[in-house]
Amino acid sequence: MVKEACAAAGQGGLMALYDLLFGLRGINTAQVLVTKPDFYNDDNRRNLQSTISELLRMNIVPILNANDAVAPPPEPDKDLLGVISVKDNDSLAARLAAEVQADLLCLLSDVDGIYTAPPGEDSSKLIDTYYPGIQSTIKFGQKSRVGMGGMESKVRAAQWALERGTAVVIANGCRQGSGQAIIDIVSGRKTGTFFTEAKVSSVTVETQAENARNGGRVLSSLTADQRSNIISHLANLLEERKSSILAANQKDMDVARQQGNLSGPMLSRLALSAGKLTNLADGLRQIAASSHQNLDRVLKRIQVADGMELRQITVPIGVLMVIFESRPDCLPQVAALAIASGNGLLLKGGKEATYSNEYLHGLVQESLDLYNAKDAISLVSSREAIYDLLKLEHLIDLVIPRGSSDLVRMIQQASKGIPVLGHSEGICHVYVDKDCDPEMAAKIVLDSKCDYPAACNAMETLLVHRSLLKTHVFDHIVDTLKQEKVSINAGPLLAKALRFGPREAKSMKVEYGGLECCVEAVDGVEDAIKHIHNFGSSHTDVIVTNNEDTAEKFLQSVDSACVFHNASSRFADGYRFGLGAEVGISTARIHSRGPVGVEGLLTTKWVLRGDGNSVGDFAEGGPNSYIHQYLPVEEDAEDSGSE
Amino acid sequence: MVKEACAAAGQGGLMALYDLLFGLRGINTAQVLVTKPDFYNDDNRRNLQSTISELLRMNIVPILNANDAVAPPPEPDKDLLGVISVKDNDSLAARLAAEVQADLLCLLSDVDGIYTAPPGEDSSKLIDTYYPGIQSTIKFGQKSRVGMGGMESKVRAAQWALERGTAVVIANGCRQGSGQAIIDIVSGRKTGTFFTEAKVSSVTVETQAENARNGGRVLSSLTADQRSNIISHLANLLEERKSSILAANQKDMDVARQQGNLSGPMLSRLALSAGKLTNLADGLRQIAASSHQNLDRVLKRIQVADGMELRQITVPIGVLMVIFESRPDCLPQVAALAIASGNGLLLKGGKEATYSNEYLHGLVQESLDLYNAKDAISLVSSREAIYDLLKLEHLIDLVIPRGSSDLVRMIQQASKGIPVLGHSEGICHVYVDKDCDPEMAAKIVLDSKCDYPAACNAMETLLVHRSLLKTHVFDHIVDTLKQEKVSINAGPLLAKALRFGPREAKSMKVEYGGLECCVEAVDGVEDAIKHIHNFGSSHTDVIVTNNEDTAEKFLQSVDSACVFHNASSRFADGYRFGLGAEVGISTARIHSRGPVGVEGLLTTKWVLRGDGNSVGDFAEGGPNSYIHQYLPVEEDAEDSGSE
Repeated sequence: MVKEACAAAGQGGLMALYDLLFGLRGINTAQVLVTKPDFYNDDNRRNLQSTISELLRMNIVPILNANDAVAPPPEPDKDLLGVISVKDNDSLAARLAAEVQADLLCLLSDVDGIYTAPPGEDSSKLIDTYYPGIQSTIKFGQKSRVGMGGMESKVRAAQWALERGTAVVIANGCRQGSGQAIIDIVSGRKTGTFFTEAKVSSVTVETQAENARNGGRVLSSLTADQRSNIISHLANLLEERKSSILAANQKDMDVARQQGNLSGPMLSRLALSAGKLTNLADGLRQIAASSHQNLDRVLKRIQVADGMELRQITVPIGVLMVIFESRPDCLPQVAALAIASGNGLLLKGGKEATYSNEYLHGLVQESLDLYNAKDAISLVSSREAIYDLLKLEHLIDLVIPRGSSDLVRMIQQASKGIPVLGHSEGICHVYVDKDCDPEMAAKIVLDSKCDYPAACNAMETLLVHRSLLKTHVFDHIVDTLKQEKVSINAGPLLAKALRFGPREAKSMKVEYGGLECCVEAVDGVEDAIKHIHNFGSSHTDVIVTNNEDTAEKFLQSVDSACVFHNASSRFADGYRFGLGAEVGISTARIHSRGPVGVEGLLTTKWVLRGDGNSVGDFAEGGPNSYIHQYLPVEEDAEDSGSE
Repeated sequence: MVKEACAAAGQGGLMALYDLLFGLRGINTAQVLVTKPDFYNDDNRRNLQSTISELLRMNIVPILNANDAVAPPPEPDKDLLGVISVKDNDSLAARLAAEVQADLLCLLSDVDGIYTAPPGEDSSKLIDTYYPGIQSTIKFGQKSRVGMGGMESKVRAAQWALERGTAVVIANGCRQGSGQAIIDIVSGRKTGTFFTEAKVSSVTVETQAENARNGGRVLSSLTADQRSNIISHLANLLEERKSSILAANQKDMDVARQQGNLSGPMLSRLALSAGKLTNLADGLRQIAASSHQNLDRVLKRIQVADGMELRQITVPIGVLMVIFESRPDCLPQVAALAIASGNGLLLKGGKEATYSNEYLHGLVQESLDLYNAKDAISLVSSREAIYDLLKLEHLIDLVIPRGSSDLVRMIQQASKGIPVLGHSEGICHVYVDKDCDPEMAAKIVLDSKCDYPAACNAMETLLVHRSLLKTHVFDHIVDTLKQEKVSINAGPLLAKALRFGPREAKSMKVEYGGLECCVEAVDGVEDAIKHIHNFGSSHTDVIVTNNEDTAEKFLQSVDSACVFHNASSRFADGYRFGLGAEVGISTARIHSRGPVGVEGLLTTKWVLRGDGNSVGDFAEGGPNSYIHQYLPVEEDAEDSGSE
């Protein structure tokens, strides 16, 4: 818009437009026209500087432009050190940014930034961060479209400003209107190419992800024993380096206490202890022991034809990104699961656990180094916004958020095309049928709600058969909940049925996550199923009944990841199910569903061994024909083998 | 922006802004200020109409507003029939739209449109199409935030305009700038609430998807025999109604020939024949026969503790949407797969097959009606843009595009959060190793490239061991390809190695899809693997070698959905694999991978049967402990049982 405005409206129209648009936001502007001598002449330079400082002090936005009317435009792209080319806005901007010692210079273009090679070449990639020392290899090509082409003068201006202490972003201003690009840049999102002198790690997150892909391939090419050794070694290190781990963790605890921004439960999740580390090491040894059957497990064997055998085998998914909050003990556990499944891994921990995570990641690296697989697992620094990572669809195959349901929801909404394993909500129901055992009903309801109310598999809504409402069964259940200080909200039908009932629930779709729940009356199992389908989140739903037919109806019809008969909803958990270490609980309808063990980190590939077959041989009247016989897979390679 | 501009800039500034912004696009504008008498008085009305018609004829955009300066604003929301409230832009717009007999009136608001209930209520949904007859049930609430609230006057204005023949859209103008909303509306995308008198089916695609969810649940609650009966009945109908099907198909063929916009191959895909229908019916009978083991198959049985048994069983995914082009025979086949797997289904066929698809869908409905499952499968009319359907994340669980790779790519890019089963590219490689049998190599290369060059599993790049380059083996392979008129592009290393080689390939990532391919030299199997990882699409890759170690290295390391030894890439196909009917080929890394049979339409659920257990019972020192013993699943319920 601005570019077109320049062309169409000329200087006066352009300033009027700026004035009007800034004015709508209540911002005053001032036009400053500059000419060449303003930069030559020391007096003029001082004048210009003080004018701009004064305007900024008065909260007036200066809008600078070359004074076309009074100075004839010299040749473009002339050396910046001597003269300023007033026809070239990029060098003017660079010069001005240096004069006013700006923190950041944004150069908006109609391309997305600087590329490693001409767009269209197979290997051409956007450079997100340009470090002048490191990227000296980029060749600025001819003036033609080959090489950096028309970007050359922009890059030179950017380098010139950078040398004088101003960071620069070259970004696309045409994509969603220049406003959005500037908002993205200023809010620290990865936009275009960022020129910086900052002494940061030269490894970008893209490089880390590529390393994870390659490192994962190294991991999966090792023998199962070697992968198991890495995990055992890590378990040993957790015990051997106990004091150093606890010292690093103490630093995080000190920072957290100083800042005072973590709640009590958050602090206790952040804290490591000798006991926690021993448990962690034990858990890792279990993962190591059970890791032998993960990869190259044969799921199907098919004799396709004479001389052609097809196998479907388990292989790693590729590159995982695990995002976790607070708990640093998550790091070695997730690393062990990735190693056990041959996956590359990007770990993104919480800022509050920086010291702990860095130390623990060092131990993971040391263990991976046993077999040159160090690249497989990277710790992503918290400088990289999650928002940016979730755009790397071609580099990351699966995202696993481990933490609060808010975290999971945020990740699910922000992911751009990368599948997210998780569940944003756990609205779990317990339906107490008319044919129930009252004691069992009270026990299961109590455990489902109160065992750990913050868990996603805790009961949020209790459905009670209408015929129980005015009986001691209902009173007993409600009294049990009240004794545990559970506050109760009534669904609309219950509220109607009771003269002096509890207050009415605002919604039937609430995940209370604490000692609170909703109670609703239903007319029977069909009605309970309907309620669950309308208001549930397909996580875990329970029926309590002694009537087998009613139970089967419920188990068959309720369309949730977990459906239980006469058992607490709290059993929906990978460890309790006997799946070994839990990767997470998924309510997605493809890939893994419900509590996910290490199997959720695997995919399959099809391996066909032939003896020179072409499909032409199988055409009608051809020499070959399909057999398609399913062959038995080895006993010890079955699912049950992972025990 | 415009709203703020009104407030801040006043009439003059606003007009200047309109003038400037339209001017940038080379469009002239004229301001027309109206007052109440312009609508009372017949002379004034005629004047106003002719002024606007004249402006439009001259390609000048009239911008209308109330003449605040000359007429005092009356009370808002007064009855439109008598006076025009000049303070209320909605009723002014409605009045003007009716006067100039506009086709469409856009009312931009700061909410997304009209909802069925106050936002925040569980059941509140955006109404995408408002038919005045049908939606009479919506209550326009009090002036407060309850009910329709502030929307009431907008809705009344819209209804008023609609009664006078102008369709109306109420949409959010603040979301991405009002410009985008208008572009979306005019290009026919579903935006906001559309008020229309058009006599269309009152069933929206959202309703169809909800019906499909419920209908799918009916399907999955039937016995396997009942589902099988539905499919067999459909197979019979395909033969019994042969002449009616062919007559409907003939109508499509006639339209296509008249319009002349379908290519020869497209026309032959559109055409049905008695033979095609017989084959189709046979295929359906096979699906019916093999459908018994799809649902409720036990994948895992775990004895969690005394009295607690856990089973993981197969269940339908939920609601599928299948998008297919041209071939109407796709419809009964996909419908049969959905029925066999208990899934609800939305079918979106090509416009060119409208008559055929409608007739065939009628037969599907007739079959489903055997067990009251008619709702399970809907045909989505082509009026609904694919773009809109792909937003219905909460209603559709999996999208399966069946057609060209362009279609698949478009669907993958447009899907907003719904997983897409498919592959956008098939860049398949054949690597000919130094230890190959030359005749076998030539045969496999030829079959991989030429058997059906448009298929996704056809070879696009031939990798040849460098040591073969100047031998008769290489010459023989190249000659074989040239005899079949395959044009050859050389990779950079091959081009360097040959003095008079073929022209150099522009890129190594091309899916030629015809009688053309790329040939590149590699230094051995490691190098071939690296090339495939750099340039391939993880679809299907082949090695030809007699060296078992080299073959195993390749099969182990190449990270593709299908890896073959001494067999043509064309075997990558569900039917050839022996998986039964093929749902598609997936290169995704989660859920199904490679050729996907009906298993790709299934997910699992966990069924736990207890005897009143709480997790509290299992706490340390508690009465219970976990057993976690894997129990055998019944023989006939294993994967191999689907034979």
